[in-house]
Amino acid sequence: MDYFSSGFKLGILGGGQLGKMMLYETRKWDIYTKVLDASSEAPSRMSCNEFAQGSLLDFDTVYNFGKDVDVLTIEIENVNLDALEKLEDEGVKVYPQPKALRIIQNKAKQKLFYVDNEIPTADFQRFAYLSEIEDSIENGGLQFPFVWKVAQFGYDGQGVKVVRSLADLKGLPTGECITEVMIPFKNELAVIVSRNSEGEIKTYPVVEMEFHPEANQVEYVICPARIDDKVAEKARALALKVANKIGLTGLLAVEMFQTEDDKILVNEVAPRPHNSGHYSIEASYTNQFEQHIRSILGLPLGNTDSKVAGVMVNLVGAEGHTGDVVYKNIEEILAMEGVTPHIYGKAQTRPFRKMGHVTIVNSDLEKARAIAEKVKETIQVISK
Amino acid sequence: MDYFSSGFKLGILGGGQLGKMMLYETRKWDIYTKVLDASSEAPSRMSCNEFAQGSLLDFDTVYNFGKDVDVLTIEIENVNLDALEKLEDEGVKVYPQPKALRIIQNKAKQKLFYVDNEIPTADFQRFAYLSEIEDSIENGGLQFPFVWKVAQFGYDGQGVKVVRSLADLKGLPTGECITEVMIPFKNELAVIVSRNSEGEIKTYPVVEMEFHPEANQVEYVICPARIDDKVAEKARALALKVANKIGLTGLLAVEMFQTEDDKILVNEVAPRPHNSGHYSIEASYTNQFEQHIRSILGLPLGNTDSKVAGVMVNLVGAEGHTGDVVYKNIEEILAMEGVTPHIYGKAQTRPFRKMGHVTIVNSDLEKARAIAEKVKETIQVISK
Repeated sequence: MDYFSSGFKLGILGGGQLGKMMLYETRKWDIYTKVLDASSEAPSRMSCNEFAQGSLLDFDTVYNFGKDVDVLTIEIENVNLDALEKLEDEGVKVYPQPKALRIIQNKAKQKLFYVDNEIPTADFQRFAYLSEIEDSIENGGLQFPFVWKVAQFGYDGQGVKVVRSLADLKGLPTGECITEVMIPFKNELAVIVSRNSEGEIKTYPVVEMEFHPEANQVEYVICPARIDDKVAEKARALALKVANKIGLTGLLAVEMFQTEDDKILVNEVAPRPHNSGHYSIEASYTNQFEQHIRSILGLPLGNTDSKVAGVMVNLVGAEGHTGDVVYKNIEEILAMEGVTPHIYGKAQTRPFRKMGHVTIVNSDLEKARAIAEKVKETIQVISK
Repeated sequence: MDYFSSGFKLGILGGGQLGKMMLYETRKWDIYTKVLDASSEAPSRMSCNEFAQGSLLDFDTVYNFGKDVDVLTIEIENVNLDALEKLEDEGVKVYPQPKALRIIQNKAKQKLFYVDNEIPTADFQRFAYLSEIEDSIENGGLQFPFVWKVAQFGYDGQGVKVVRSLADLKGLPTGECITEVMIPFKNELAVIVSRNSEGEIKTYPVVEMEFHPEANQVEYVICPARIDDKVAEKARALALKVANKIGLTGLLAVEMFQTEDDKILVNEVAPRPHNSGHYSIEASYTNQFEQHIRSILGLPLGNTDSKVAGVMVNLVGAEGHTGDVVYKNIEEILAMEGVTPHIYGKAQTRPFRKMGHVTIVNSDLEKARAIAEKVKETIQVISK
């Protein structure tokens, strides 16, 4: 199949910011794309050849959307997998494969997969209903504090909560969930692994993530991680092991904990371009979105090394602001060295909503980190 | 004016590959854009908020298109300047300014501008009609060889010809033109200067250009130019002088000759992002398209330094091939280190048509140059 000539069609499920950034690459290579998203105002409504509005979770919508494409991919894992399986059976190349998505989409299954494959991860328990957690606490089967995670359809820090008392369980979704032992960790790390449909596999460097303590969202992503080379090597090897075991075609972002005694545990994975790889647009020889496209089209993978150090800051909606968005002081950050804002194009802001990100690159990582802090102190995502 | 919030509109005249690459930046910043192009199949028909089809040379079309935008820019200088002047009078910010475009659009005026401002350039003569050249040759006023250039609306090597005998004049456009003395030069160089509407000004590094001997199109652009630092400094200073004299807001690409005795002469200028700056997408801290947007919106200019060395190869249609395009061996070049193809999305190829370009980046310039040669030997732009 010649992707660079007419006739070929790529389908993308989801038209959020990840899809939008994927489309920079399909435009660069003039690859024909169609996008499905629930919202007519989705960030990637432009830049695709065809845009369709509809639910990613509806069998018929996804099936009908995917019938006439050559390759079908995702920018979000919460999609109807039955439809993907049927499409795969009928000859559409679905990457990542539905089989891999089944493992990842449900966090309980994801954890069981780690156990089955001897991949180190935090101890966990699985619950069919939230109410079972209360029973378990009463029976002494579960101690505070622990981390509660919804099994399916969590996103952007929604669906994860540190539980320190019974009161913290109030208001949580009542369905299937897991609880995890709180891991005292030195660092949160991530590695993006790319694997193409020919089996070629490459890892990006280890990045270090700093989380916002309340919103449970990444505040800074730092590449390369400021950790010992041996620890980095261990993290990269573990990410590669996970990717090889799952065997998916596309990108796999592997989030990990570095414990106090330098053990590496897998936290969770995402089967797509990931927030922890946004720095790559400005810093890497091959950015994660181009690499994703290379992977799913069976093209040779690009160089995952960095040209320069990179720090990424998420632009999230400020607390107390809901409504038409304003990016206050964006001109001030544009005057800082090596600063590139990305504005996703969501019209409405609300507290902690991901509205964009800013990448800071520099040949000196510490300088980039210092500028990133100034960026964070300067720009504000507020409402009009 | 807040460009990053709703309400602001940017108009772009021309929807070719330069406009297409400009739109990567407006999408990145979610800036509302409308594009005018003569072809409904223009490369930037996607990725803009509004696309209008119509002639860039027609007064009413351009005027009506520009009436409701806040800032109007161009990706090609062959546009109706009377319409731009009227729009400017009525309060639209037109960047680059029509006054500057008047100087540049006509090569005879451009040359007179150099003379008036003591900017070194090859000696030239101006002719209202092609037939006057023959008279001048007969009278001994003009000697072979010389360079003929059409005064207006030349593009992509069209409109320039080395004339070695009367026979070479056959078939040339009959209208206004100039002739230039042939300059024996060591190198062709270029510098892109950016100037924002607040008067801030920055130059990109000097690049070196190798031309295809027959097609008169750039074959390799090499950044940084492999020349003596003093010569580079001289070229950068001259480019800055030209930009300051023209005083336009936006980008000015200044093409120059380095003569055998290391004099620098201005060849010609382009008031927009330029082929000689495409390397910047992968190699520079701030690419030329983002810099153009920063300039015309009065935003602080970005860092023009390079992260790594870059070499750019134009993808032009192979001789003997006209029709639906095929990019032969593109997978082979994707396997080479640091190689990024850009496919403009023109459905039809013809000999020497610019169909795309490939950038090769590397921390070592000589390696990038060697890989560029392999790219050039490998990929072929042919018809089906």
